[in-house]
Amino acid sequence: MSPGAMEASTANRRWIYAERPEAALGPEHFAFGQGPMPVAQPGQALLGVRAISVDPAQRAWMKAASYRPRLEPGEVMAAYGLAEVLESRTPELQPGDIVEGDFGWQDYAVASPAQVVRRDKARSLEELVGVLNITGLTAYFGLFDIGRPRPGETVVVSAAAGAVGCIALQLARLAGCRVVGIAGGAEKCRWVSEHLGADAVVDYKAAGLQEALAAACPRGVDVYFDNTGGDILEAALSLMNLRGRVVCCGAVAQYDQAAAGQGLKGMPGVLIRKRIRMEGFIVFDHYARRSAAEAALCAWIDAGLLKAPMEIVDGLTNAPQALMDLLKGRHRGKMMVRPS
Amino acid sequence: MSPGAMEASTANRRWIYAERPEAALGPEHFAFGQGPMPVAQPGQALLGVRAISVDPAQRAWMKAASYRPRLEPGEVMAAYGLAEVLESRTPELQPGDIVEGDFGWQDYAVASPAQVVRRDKARSLEELVGVLNITGLTAYFGLFDIGRPRPGETVVVSAAAGAVGCIALQLARLAGCRVVGIAGGAEKCRWVSEHLGADAVVDYKAAGLQEALAAACPRGVDVYFDNTGGDILEAALSLMNLRGRVVCCGAVAQYDQAAAGQGLKGMPGVLIRKRIRMEGFIVFDHYARRSAAEAALCAWIDAGLLKAPMEIVDGLTNAPQALMDLLKGRHRGKMMVRPS
Repeated sequence: MSPGAMEASTANRRWIYAERPEAALGPEHFAFGQGPMPVAQPGQALLGVRAISVDPAQRAWMKAASYRPRLEPGEVMAAYGLAEVLESRTPELQPGDIVEGDFGWQDYAVASPAQVVRRDKARSLEELVGVLNITGLTAYFGLFDIGRPRPGETVVVSAAAGAVGCIALQLARLAGCRVVGIAGGAEKCRWVSEHLGADAVVDYKAAGLQEALAAACPRGVDVYFDNTGGDILEAALSLMNLRGRVVCCGAVAQYDQAAAGQGLKGMPGVLIRKRIRMEGFIVFDHYARRSAAEAALCAWIDAGLLKAPMEIVDGLTNAPQALMDLLKGRHRGKMMVRPS
Repeated sequence: MSPGAMEASTANRRWIYAERPEAALGPEHFAFGQGPMPVAQPGQALLGVRAISVDPAQRAWMKAASYRPRLEPGEVMAAYGLAEVLESRTPELQPGDIVEGDFGWQDYAVASPAQVVRRDKARSLEELVGVLNITGLTAYFGLFDIGRPRPGETVVVSAAAGAVGCIALQLARLAGCRVVGIAGGAEKCRWVSEHLGADAVVDYKAAGLQEALAAACPRGVDVYFDNTGGDILEAALSLMNLRGRVVCCGAVAQYDQAAAGQGLKGMPGVLIRKRIRMEGFIVFDHYARRSAAEAALCAWIDAGLLKAPMEIVDGLTNAPQALMDLLKGRHRGKMMVRPS
């Protein structure tokens, strides 16, 4: 066995979260290195990471505690992903099984059965990491459980070219709503219109966001699915109909900046005048119905009614750049890193 | 008949809304005068106004359209109230009936049966204008329908010495919750504690609101009943528990000022992290269940479990000062003007 091969089989490439960002995320906040190959103890399995989910929430994890403790420098960078069971010391997992979990930015991990969820190998890795995972389920539960759209209502989705947005927008269309997407730049807007089937699209990078959104929503806004916060949220709030619902899903406009910004204007007056419900949620709270939601999503996918656009970045070394690109909105649909 | 008596019976004292306030409300925004005695047409009744409700919402009506069109200078100042039927040209109303409606700041009005609601003369005018009217029903529906408190939860009420707040606070106590009132000044705080039975009270005019509220809520906040907006809302939001509910009832801190202020910080991030529901409401949307709510309120009142504190201002001429005092928080409980 050559020294090179020896190294390949005993080393685990990984990215360490090295330094907490004060403002925009940069390469300096991560350190690439190799750790020892993890060893499965009795009751554990050795996993080879096959797909790493790239999520705006990762930036939020660096910033503050949330539904999970804050990430601390020195830890392997956290990330959801899919892995293949390579060796197993538990009867609950078999070599060749595909499992999901928080395996981080690395080639290998060990986990006990309680730390992973076995997935259906009949679906592709892309589907399993995207539309049938946090991304698609966030769109599903956020739209249906929090937004509760009714046929004929107007649903506005921000970051409509993004991973969650592009699913939420299509689901609202399938629910019989008039759907308006907000995205950045003419090219993305065209894609949201032509590829995803939005009834109207607004480019938030062009001048006159408020006026453009008003023109795109001649009957006002019944459900606003907010992935951005900030100015876009303010513009949408001003157009809400009576008893409108604001789905607080994400605030990507605010993750990658230093301070909390100016504050949301018009609050809480606009909620009172229009009897608006504004509600935050975390997808995991709804996981008791995960399998029902996945079944619905699979049926739409298999019938050709729901597209699950993917952007695949090859190579673990490109993970930090992928996350930086995601935060800058340089993608369409769900982004994943294929480690090797 | 003397000229004086003649004048008394043919003239209708009234306050005209004279000028839109740019900032704080002052006497210069109203003009006192006398109009002709209104005459009931067929299908109408002549009413003598007996009790005028003083509400923070009146300041909001001057500012912008809401659930009612914006008040325009030149109109009789709008106000809910109770009146006695003096003469009737409709079989649906009898002299001596007590009715409620928007009769404005004046001694007499005419109305058709559709414009008024007949009330139970067995209850006092004070109860009928306060706890059994918009004030008490706003507390009732806001707390139970929007806040949905559960026994043992912590409920925080701002403007707890105010008309809606003092009912909401007592209802939360009756619902088995730990109740924390926020009020301005040591004397009001003592009253909220001793007279209304709050478990803890926070003086928002003292230094360290955030710390004091945190100390008063050792198990966090499950329901925040917001009558104020502004800094108090921000402080409460930061202490919300997972799946907390913010009842957006009023924004009295913001009615009587020129601009919309700084904006609410931390939005929408705090809603997402804590899965908070923040919801505005208007009491009238819930009036289908008004009689059930009134029956519940009457039962608590008659059992001595619910106090309905009143502040009665005598004389129609004092109406503008009463509203100004209300906006400055110089009152406890429900304020009404007794015209003569």
